[in-house]
Amino acid sequence: MAKQKPRTLSGFMELLPERQIQFDQMVALLRQIYSLYSFTPLDTPIIEASEVLLAKAGGETEKQIYRFAKGDNDLSLRFDLTVPLAKYVALHYAQLSFPFRRFQIGKVYRGERAQRGRFREFYQADIDVIGDGTLDIVNEAEIPAIIYHTFTTLGLRRFQIRVNNRKILNGFYAMLGLSERSGDIMRTVDKLDKIGSEKVAQLLTEGDTGITQEQAQDILKFITIKGSQEEVLHSLTAYCNRNSTFDQGLDELNSVVKYLSAFGVPQEQFVVDLTIARGLDYYTGSVYETIMLDHPEIGSICSGGRYDNLAKYYTDKQLPGVGISIGLTRLFYVLQEQGYLNDQLPTAPADVLILPMTDDLTSAISFATLLREGGVRAQLYTENKKFKQKMSYADKLNIPYVVFLGEDEIIQNTISVKNMASGEQRTLPVAEAAGFIQNSLQLRQEVPPIQEPER
Amino acid sequence: MAKQKPRTLSGFMELLPERQIQFDQMVALLRQIYSLYSFTPLDTPIIEASEVLLAKAGGETEKQIYRFAKGDNDLSLRFDLTVPLAKYVALHYAQLSFPFRRFQIGKVYRGERAQRGRFREFYQADIDVIGDGTLDIVNEAEIPAIIYHTFTTLGLRRFQIRVNNRKILNGFYAMLGLSERSGDIMRTVDKLDKIGSEKVAQLLTEGDTGITQEQAQDILKFITIKGSQEEVLHSLTAYCNRNSTFDQGLDELNSVVKYLSAFGVPQEQFVVDLTIARGLDYYTGSVYETIMLDHPEIGSICSGGRYDNLAKYYTDKQLPGVGISIGLTRLFYVLQEQGYLNDQLPTAPADVLILPMTDDLTSAISFATLLREGGVRAQLYTENKKFKQKMSYADKLNIPYVVFLGEDEIIQNTISVKNMASGEQRTLPVAEAAGFIQNSLQLRQEVPPIQEPER
Repeated sequence: MAKQKPRTLSGFMELLPERQIQFDQMVALLRQIYSLYSFTPLDTPIIEASEVLLAKAGGETEKQIYRFAKGDNDLSLRFDLTVPLAKYVALHYAQLSFPFRRFQIGKVYRGERAQRGRFREFYQADIDVIGDGTLDIVNEAEIPAIIYHTFTTLGLRRFQIRVNNRKILNGFYAMLGLSERSGDIMRTVDKLDKIGSEKVAQLLTEGDTGITQEQAQDILKFITIKGSQEEVLHSLTAYCNRNSTFDQGLDELNSVVKYLSAFGVPQEQFVVDLTIARGLDYYTGSVYETIMLDHPEIGSICSGGRYDNLAKYYTDKQLPGVGISIGLTRLFYVLQEQGYLNDQLPTAPADVLILPMTDDLTSAISFATLLREGGVRAQLYTENKKFKQKMSYADKLNIPYVVFLGEDEIIQNTISVKNMASGEQRTLPVAEAAGFIQNSLQLRQEVPPIQEPER
Repeated sequence: MAKQKPRTLSGFMELLPERQIQFDQMVALLRQIYSLYSFTPLDTPIIEASEVLLAKAGGETEKQIYRFAKGDNDLSLRFDLTVPLAKYVALHYAQLSFPFRRFQIGKVYRGERAQRGRFREFYQADIDVIGDGTLDIVNEAEIPAIIYHTFTTLGLRRFQIRVNNRKILNGFYAMLGLSERSGDIMRTVDKLDKIGSEKVAQLLTEGDTGITQEQAQDILKFITIKGSQEEVLHSLTAYCNRNSTFDQGLDELNSVVKYLSAFGVPQEQFVVDLTIARGLDYYTGSVYETIMLDHPEIGSICSGGRYDNLAKYYTDKQLPGVGISIGLTRLFYVLQEQGYLNDQLPTAPADVLILPMTDDLTSAISFATLLREGGVRAQLYTENKKFKQKMSYADKLNIPYVVFLGEDEIIQNTISVKNMASGEQRTLPVAEAAGFIQNSLQLRQEVPPIQEPER
């Protein structure tokens, strides 16, 4: 028979079993942390009606959409988890309690140009808090605390959360009479790290931007305010009482900084960075980025912010919120590339491999059942292979214990158990053996999925 | 602004938060049990190249496929998890260790005619054991043991696993000289429960089936063999030594029955049922169905079997396997409809709602952080609402504890905690409070997601 060559589409991540376990471990930890912060899990369809999903539409995103007809239906695959959340909240508004705190970890689709490290199918891990009409500022401090807790639990240490407030930026540009230019200016200013301040000043004033040299210098002076949280906040007071939006933004930023230490976030992992704006139009208050300090070139690994109107395309209700998103597939890819995945994380599918040495398997099955009842992941290996091949199977899969069950053991109601790491082998009564293995497994240290290399 | 009416496509399940938690709890238990039996998790793309996904193709399935072009690519959404597994094993053969045991819980897509209880996007929960060249019979006994363990853990009691062996059927039809008709016959015989034996005999002999009245009676006599496992196996010995395939099938069935009790499956939840064939062409040995005894009309909630050649469209390697699949979305829908979802399962997004009564939130935040460090899911409620509304929020979400933090408490370094179920309220030193809440939560009984109604 002619064979179809098996392949996986380019831009679609498909992991080998050991890697999949590492990925799943990250997802499990995210779920655990998001739950600790009392977010409830959601799972919305991957396919939505195009007119619903693309109610906002326009721009680069729409070109990337997977959109197709099925029967009479015009369908699209979701390209993020925010639009489905907006739909969900508008649709189920009456049945939800606000503030509504949800997390969603799911696949999204963007038909980007295929290139290394870019994915067309990828997981996003989002949390959002949605208020009904209003939403307290404390949520804007809690979000970076969750970012901190998340990455620390995953095992990352050298990262920094960068926070800004859109009201401060908007207020500042209003002071300069440049409100209408603020979008363009922020896009230019965003390149500061890459191209330097001289080049930024040049870009700001060239062409018909209507920005004077003096204004450009004011902008540069403002966005290059640096220092500790207190220093930055102090420098910003110099701009107070000239624009109410600015003043409100500074108040908010003060609250965020103040509450962050109560949330347990160390000062050194959190900076106020006035260059951060976030591209999306809809952020209106705090905005966040998260940088791996040893790999700033990767860009932000967790971003988000405060918005005033989540679902304006679907409802008249005012639904302000604050949220963040982790591009999990890309992050995992980067961690793998950089050697940040922890080799110590157990990836064996079983804790024990049972090798029966007799034709009748009843005793082996009973022992496997006993182990499983005690929470031990047990596998029977019953294929007709040479002993060496069986041991090599356990070895390749990193299964920590191998159990032998031969005639002698069955007659004496014992088992022989070999610790694959130490090579130590001992024979134990069946009744004790399960407990022995359970205890040995419990002694293993829990390790996080990420381990940064020594610096 | 004109609003787009938000909606979710028909045939796509979208759950409210409480239901989602129940669904997720079922998924978590499945993952746990599959891991105990040492299956490793996989996650393959939802989109595949059409020529890969439809290498087998044909029939009803292909009509239902979501297939579309994106750029130059002809793409399809997976319609099950078996074809992606075949592709995965063929593609990554060299990097896998066999037997390869994997589970996958993921969404699949079928553009079926929309009707109540039918889904176009639904979760399947699959496990398969794939051998390289050969695969031992003990796997065919382990699979129904996993079915038993799975449904018992989910909380289901009144279910029955029905097992048959395709070799017994094929061997039997060969004895009658009806091998070439066996497919048609099995399809007719499958209707026995619905239309009765007389009607089956009539269907078997009418038209140009080439089946005599005598053969039809032989068939009916055979497939209506009933009784305990031993009785059925004993009745089958009467057919021995006439066809080697039959004899082999009976040997296999004997092994499966023998080992099942070692796996801990009670006799009453497991029957040999000679009417079961499973529609798919590719089953070659044991086949399984699982029936809810009080709702046989729902059909099988977990089915599968043994096959000899998983990936023949992709590779010359002989890859026999055995697997089962649960249609999780449909099962969940049915459980919900039948009132089988356990109301006792906690669905609150938080264990504790903290109500700060002061302007400064530092103490409240510190207490929330303390609770979370102890594994307690804590939420700060800081919206500017009336006290009654705050309590009603906790009430609606079934949050078990509410904590009050006013001036008095902060000065005395205490908190007041209210048990929402009993109404009991007590004031405790902060240092004791976290422990008190932790302990109280641990006393709550763990309940399964399914509870059958009293009969």
